[in-house]
Amino acid sequence: MESTSRHVEILPFTSAIELTPAQLESIDAAFYSRDIWNGTVKEVLSPASQRFWRFVDAAPNLKWIQLVSAGADHRHYRRCAERAVRLTTSAGTNAEPVALNAVTGLLMIARGFLHWTRAQQKREWAPLGDPESARDLRGQTAVIIGTGHIGTAIARNLKANGVRTIGLRRRIVSTEHFDEVLPLSALDNLLQKCDWLVLACPLTPETRRLIDARRLALLPSHAGFVNVARGEVVDEGALIHALAGERLRGAYLDVFAVEPLPADSPLWHLQNVIMTPHDATSSVGNYARGVELFLRNLESYLRGHKLENEVQTPLHD
Amino acid sequence: MESTSRHVEILPFTSAIELTPAQLESIDAAFYSRDIWNGTVKEVLSPASQRFWRFVDAAPNLKWIQLVSAGADHRHYRRCAERAVRLTTSAGTNAEPVALNAVTGLLMIARGFLHWTRAQQKREWAPLGDPESARDLRGQTAVIIGTGHIGTAIARNLKANGVRTIGLRRRIVSTEHFDEVLPLSALDNLLQKCDWLVLACPLTPETRRLIDARRLALLPSHAGFVNVARGEVVDEGALIHALAGERLRGAYLDVFAVEPLPADSPLWHLQNVIMTPHDATSSVGNYARGVELFLRNLESYLRGHKLENEVQTPLHD
Repeated sequence: MESTSRHVEILPFTSAIELTPAQLESIDAAFYSRDIWNGTVKEVLSPASQRFWRFVDAAPNLKWIQLVSAGADHRHYRRCAERAVRLTTSAGTNAEPVALNAVTGLLMIARGFLHWTRAQQKREWAPLGDPESARDLRGQTAVIIGTGHIGTAIARNLKANGVRTIGLRRRIVSTEHFDEVLPLSALDNLLQKCDWLVLACPLTPETRRLIDARRLALLPSHAGFVNVARGEVVDEGALIHALAGERLRGAYLDVFAVEPLPADSPLWHLQNVIMTPHDATSSVGNYARGVELFLRNLESYLRGHKLENEVQTPLHD
Repeated sequence: MESTSRHVEILPFTSAIELTPAQLESIDAAFYSRDIWNGTVKEVLSPASQRFWRFVDAAPNLKWIQLVSAGADHRHYRRCAERAVRLTTSAGTNAEPVALNAVTGLLMIARGFLHWTRAQQKREWAPLGDPESARDLRGQTAVIIGTGHIGTAIARNLKANGVRTIGLRRRIVSTEHFDEVLPLSALDNLLQKCDWLVLACPLTPETRRLIDARRLALLPSHAGFVNVARGEVVDEGALIHALAGERLRGAYLDVFAVEPLPADSPLWHLQNVIMTPHDATSSVGNYARGVELFLRNLESYLRGHKLENEVQTPLHD
């Protein structure tokens, strides 16, 4: 990073921090870092997060916040957008772990680990009989909604194994590792020939409940479903219905309509579901990658340059 | 396949087949196909397999058998070699499913699914705390023993995620998807810097108990272990000891010293072990691939050409 001569005062965030009105007025930029965010589950904020957003609300001259998340769908973020506070996400810094979780879940379903894991728990030596054998992954088709960092890393892994990868996104751009990239409007025609439906898109007005009962019914019963996007992108009740009725082969879910997943959710009981607790980002390197992105953006901010990952679209409910 | 004018009589193998002495004398070649083999567990043969090998023993002019397996370490195969019956394996036809199982098991351990799967069973929403976060896979080192079809497909998947791949084999050949290929003698020096030790080699005198207590002790405690080769390549007692003492991060095992794995094996109880019942080959496409290979080899056999996958090395106990 080139150095800049502009003086920057750092107010380190600690659990004991109290800011005077003068200090609050002096804040131009804030870093919602991973250590502050840790422990936050959807709208239920960690104590440090609560304190952080209280300062944000009370800082009248705040102009920019660097977020820890890849998505920008939190109510606090919306409030910032309404105040014209610029937001930059950490999209990309967590993409590899999330993509690897998606690939792991997909492979577990594709290969037969739903069966083997259960047999191991019961201490049963139970090879799959021939009729239950896995279909060859090579030659299958995956429809990946979202062709950002996460979707692309998923596609890279699947293509390395001969899977046909079709990416769907709002704006068509040519994208490495995808055999084809199409607009979201192509979805319905693709579902019937798709072996894997993978959600790796942001939650936006267009993607909210994108996968509803009608679309789930278009999938073949051997298809698998993967969601590392947001729980709200799918109609969770319809998904549970399809899985319980074995109208899908299985699902790997990291995200849910309500988090933590309520104790009475039928998802806990389904044998064809692999779940992780909105934890697919989990990886030691994220913290360093997030700090590096913040420092790059801070440099750009001070120089009046374009910020990386700036949220451009208005945020809706 | 080009046609050949030589007359070939086919004796279709059925569960009711009985062969006359004249028929047995007429047999030149045999295909130990997947449907005959199905249900065989190591030295415990399926009824169809028992019948098949009885015919083999009684066919005095038999010259070649196409095997269903990638390995050639079965006692019946040894008997054939002693009689100078040529053997060809099906190496390659099952490689992709086996490699994908190895990759799935490795990713499950790498990403944290040992933890998440347990939490899901207990219906607990339990994100990994930061100290337990997975280490980034990118930049880690995998030592893969065996650089055949399976080892190479494993390397391809790992390299697609930035893992450094070192292959070990008897004879050094330059191999795609490996950063380095070294002789087996390099093993001891590599173990200390290795994050993943993956066994994908044939069982031979050189590889039997290759991974013993001393070598396991050289691995760092964050290392994971994957075995899709043969149970006999590792000292299973020493492996259990290392896993139980958490001197390894975890293991994915498809193969065992005794199969089916005995009910009293401590492996059933270890929380850091993922097991499949020597079933990693499981895939619908294997049968067709095996038949295609047999037909290619039959053509070569009839023309006196080189056979694909012929077992060259003498088979030892």
